[in-house]
Amino acid sequence: MTTSKKANRAVVLLSGGLDSTTVLGMAVNQGYECYALSFDYGQRHRSELLAAQRVASSYANVVHKTIRLELGDFGGSALTDNTIDVPDASPDAEEHIPITYVPARNTVFLSLAVAWAEVLDAQSIFIGVNAVDYSGYPDCRPEFIQAFQRAARLGTKAGVEADNDEQALRIETPLVDLSKADIIRAGIAHGVDYSLTVSCYQADAQGAACGRCDSCYLRRKGFDEANVADPTIYTNGPGIG
Amino acid sequence: MTTSKKANRAVVLLSGGLDSTTVLGMAVNQGYECYALSFDYGQRHRSELLAAQRVASSYANVVHKTIRLELGDFGGSALTDNTIDVPDASPDAEEHIPITYVPARNTVFLSLAVAWAEVLDAQSIFIGVNAVDYSGYPDCRPEFIQAFQRAARLGTKAGVEADNDEQALRIETPLVDLSKADIIRAGIAHGVDYSLTVSCYQADAQGAACGRCDSCYLRRKGFDEANVADPTIYTNGPGIG
Repeated sequence: MTTSKKANRAVVLLSGGLDSTTVLGMAVNQGYECYALSFDYGQRHRSELLAAQRVASSYANVVHKTIRLELGDFGGSALTDNTIDVPDASPDAEEHIPITYVPARNTVFLSLAVAWAEVLDAQSIFIGVNAVDYSGYPDCRPEFIQAFQRAARLGTKAGVEADNDEQALRIETPLVDLSKADIIRAGIAHGVDYSLTVSCYQADAQGAACGRCDSCYLRRKGFDEANVADPTIYTNGPGIG
Repeated sequence: MTTSKKANRAVVLLSGGLDSTTVLGMAVNQGYECYALSFDYGQRHRSELLAAQRVASSYANVVHKTIRLELGDFGGSALTDNTIDVPDASPDAEEHIPITYVPARNTVFLSLAVAWAEVLDAQSIFIGVNAVDYSGYPDCRPEFIQAFQRAARLGTKAGVEADNDEQALRIETPLVDLSKADIIRAGIAHGVDYSLTVSCYQADAQGAACGRCDSCYLRRKGFDEANVADPTIYTNGPGIG
């Protein structure tokens, strides 16, 4: 049995935040038939999921699926455990792995993207990881992505059957070397509407951002540096930006 | 920040079948503090989940968690898609990847085990993959497990912080080189009660097996070759064994 891989078909991990929305805009503009995948994993910032729906439905041909995942059951992260507070941004502590880190999140998300890609015969998976403003998450590093791609190729039917490297599953990380400002500039060039997106770890039900968490800090700094007007609504005034 | 890895703590993937139950028995007997992890992923053979509960609760100190996963939403497998029939066993077609293959299943299961292991500071993950009677699933091969272990180490906080290889996350596959008969002999030596387990892809609500599918074929053949009485109840008489 051989699989005819669909080279122009892609699964795109879409959180509804700035990075993944940029990636979706890039993939759509590059002519990919996009299948956007979001996760309802018990995250506090539920408005992110609404943002993902808004973003996906702003494109006529993007198929969107949200999978429920009980990552919160495992505990251990301020993003899924209500007993742990989301800390304010600490831009100088760059070596530190923050408490907002969700255990093995990208490993879990990518593995489910691989499952869907296998069913769709999609050759590409897009993920908005970034090694510049990466907030200290180990599963955003290029060496992790590369190792995961290798495992995914070995662990799938398509990987076994692919005749050569050109047909094998690819994990695409178009943002990996970009600063937040570069990402925003690229997104604007691809027509991304950032007013649809939510980055804040504790955005309110309407998607208004706290202006104080690490994610707000990086987002605001990015718009500043890109010289692009920030469409984000902040609940707490000017914040630290 | 450093993590004090708990070398005697393990997450054990437990389907409720013969292999994973053997692995749990081995890990318990080797003195591991075991956290058994099962998945409700829309599998047809729901009685497997009941078996997993029976098996886990037969040990006084095993913590058991069942995570719901909507793998069936992706489609593409006879095990999760009711529109695809489970075929009878075809023992001669060993090169073929069967329709009972669930896309990227072990990749997904292992990634969730990594997430739980990270929260627990558990150093080991046990999985009952087997490269001898492996039914042609690519994600049961040792080269896949090795590649996944590498990705998991790179993608986790513990992996980043581990000072050396001895403290890093390990994926243990004690059955990888054993025949089904060897697995059964090992399980009996570890006091495993196989009457608690279900292997059949289409077992009925009481856990009775069809006697005809690939999984029944391999199980029955294993008991025969091990010269151990098969405690399985078959609904369809003697089957193909």
